[in-house]
Amino acid sequence: MELPSKLLEKTVSYFESLPGVGRRTALRYTLQLLKMQKEDALNFGASVIKLVEELGFCSICHNVSDGDICQICAHPKRDTETICVVEDLRDLLAIESTSQYYGVYHVLGGVISPLDGIGPKDLHFESLVSRLAEGTCKEVIFALPSTMEGDTTSFYMFKRLKDFNIKTTSLARGVAVGNELQYTDELTLGRSIQGRLPYDNAMRTF
Amino acid sequence: MELPSKLLEKTVSYFESLPGVGRRTALRYTLQLLKMQKEDALNFGASVIKLVEELGFCSICHNVSDGDICQICAHPKRDTETICVVEDLRDLLAIESTSQYYGVYHVLGGVISPLDGIGPKDLHFESLVSRLAEGTCKEVIFALPSTMEGDTTSFYMFKRLKDFNIKTTSLARGVAVGNELQYTDELTLGRSIQGRLPYDNAMRTF
Repeated sequence: MELPSKLLEKTVSYFESLPGVGRRTALRYTLQLLKMQKEDALNFGASVIKLVEELGFCSICHNVSDGDICQICAHPKRDTETICVVEDLRDLLAIESTSQYYGVYHVLGGVISPLDGIGPKDLHFESLVSRLAEGTCKEVIFALPSTMEGDTTSFYMFKRLKDFNIKTTSLARGVAVGNELQYTDELTLGRSIQGRLPYDNAMRTF
Repeated sequence: MELPSKLLEKTVSYFESLPGVGRRTALRYTLQLLKMQKEDALNFGASVIKLVEELGFCSICHNVSDGDICQICAHPKRDTETICVVEDLRDLLAIESTSQYYGVYHVLGGVISPLDGIGPKDLHFESLVSRLAEGTCKEVIFALPSTMEGDTTSFYMFKRLKDFNIKTTSLARGVAVGNELQYTDELTLGRSIQGRLPYDNAMRTF
């Protein structure tokens, strides 16, 4: 599909570089920009530039933050003895939305993935190690995706953090709430049997 | 889902204004911008601003164009006696990709839609009328979407163009090539019977 304008072509190709966006969708987005109020479209472009140039990160946990320290790390009622390690901001927001976690976070910024050329040095590991070396933390929760890369990263951290006298836990894997057993895949069902809990303990979460 | 940064919030809300993009997808796009090479992300923003400020339109057919007149209108072998009226650039590209049309176009920039407050005056009707008044055009093809709004627009144009001694045609509605009759909806099948063609005529397109 050859476009009749180089300017258009350029913007479409930038939209195409977003995840899950093909050429048709990119063109649809670009034409929408032209249908918008001109001022809104200009502000769109300016906001992208401003975001990339000015967005800051928390110096403690690497969460996105307008100030030097993010709202969660700065919150006086948060339990700094528990650190939950997540891949990125979206996972952090997902955990926050459960209202079940009152500790602090550490945002790795990705997971180890040799195929994509991402090793431990590309992630925020060293700052996690120095946080733990301070000695206030008593438990680290690995809340990484349940994929090959996520599991590899958890295992790497587990080995790396062995020397610290700190409890390491991982999110429970099991049957999703509301799901039928017959439609749950074997791996998940298997993990849910291995990780079974005393009944009164399991009910405590309700 | 409350975001921890106002800068982030702003860009996410701009992405949300694109068609079919919800809050989660908008956040995904925004985080991708932060993962990109900084230069690429800056160029993304700059290209949006440049597009909105500098993109030009053909002074004849309102197609997107880098020059005053678009490649199609300027092409010496295009048949200027036939004008195909389309809603927007995407429909024009779709027709171009068939390689079955050698005439020129007229891009309306939308369809009449009272619910969205779009009337004939918001579209490029008047320039179509003045093109026809020049007298070179012999046929106008209505290639608008097969929706309530598209049909309304075609009917409006039909009434408006009656006084000109010009043939007006509409795209054929019928069973899509490769589709089974039993899975075609009644309306489409009904239209395909009404619009049936002599067999030798129908085969000519192959």
